[in-house]
Amino acid sequence: MRADLVISKVDEHNLQHLLHLIEELARFEHLAPPDRQARARLERDALRSDPPFSAFLAFLDSKPVGYITYYFTYSTFQGRPNLFLEDIFVHEGARQRGVGRELFRFCAQEALAQGCGRMEWSVLDWNENAIRFYESMGGKRLGWFFYRLDEEGMKGLDR
Amino acid sequence: MRADLVISKVDEHNLQHLLHLIEELARFEHLAPPDRQARARLERDALRSDPPFSAFLAFLDSKPVGYITYYFTYSTFQGRPNLFLEDIFVHEGARQRGVGRELFRFCAQEALAQGCGRMEWSVLDWNENAIRFYESMGGKRLGWFFYRLDEEGMKGLDR
Repeated sequence: MRADLVISKVDEHNLQHLLHLIEELARFEHLAPPDRQARARLERDALRSDPPFSAFLAFLDSKPVGYITYYFTYSTFQGRPNLFLEDIFVHEGARQRGVGRELFRFCAQEALAQGCGRMEWSVLDWNENAIRFYESMGGKRLGWFFYRLDEEGMKGLDR
Repeated sequence: MRADLVISKVDEHNLQHLLHLIEELARFEHLAPPDRQARARLERDALRSDPPFSAFLAFLDSKPVGYITYYFTYSTFQGRPNLFLEDIFVHEGARQRGVGRELFRFCAQEALAQGCGRMEWSVLDWNENAIRFYESMGGKRLGWFFYRLDEEGMKGLDR
């Protein structure tokens, strides 16, 4: 890896950088950032001995400029785990310097090391820069629609 | 729940029913079913003490007619886990009898019990019956594209 770029696992010393960058990503995606309670849960979950996700920060010239979070899913058809890249983000001022590319490659290496058959992720349909980036990395778009049921919806099924 | 329908956790006694139904789902979706090696991995993983996915079978009048598999993902914006429904399938001969609905409700209850903020899943864009079903259960389609990098693609990034 390049000498100016360091990818470090999130721990109690750098966790605040992660929280700050997650808020930036949410603003960029026009989605609701974590509120105070969500931040508290995120801090607790990130530092658990069995965290529900993995998180790494990218430091460019010693400044925290990007991050990834991922977890493992499972393909019943392949009988193998997949790595799902939940978030990948590079701060606006640090773009076009290959940071995203290094974070993405880091994930692919981790997926291979863990015996995954695939790496998967989703992207907002209007985020053309991200789509261009993912396709340049070899990602293939699948013909799937993504669906969600929120907490109210889940509770509604119980009535 | 209805007296004619039983939802049972997959274990060593009923695992072969699960494998059979997974193959049926793959054929229905025109996707590659698990090959011999994948079946062996799936059997091993399903029976691990810390399985990478949860699996339940639906028995209608004591016959295995459907199944679900799911795992937990994580929303960094919500600071909460989500339940991701990987597979939901009801054998053709047992459709229109509410089995899918009960399996789906079972998942939503499990998601709530585990403190999830959301239940999520994906659906093939041509599967109109499934889409109609999911929307009848309150599912909302999101504006995301789904991307994948296969093993070759991951290895290619390493060169």
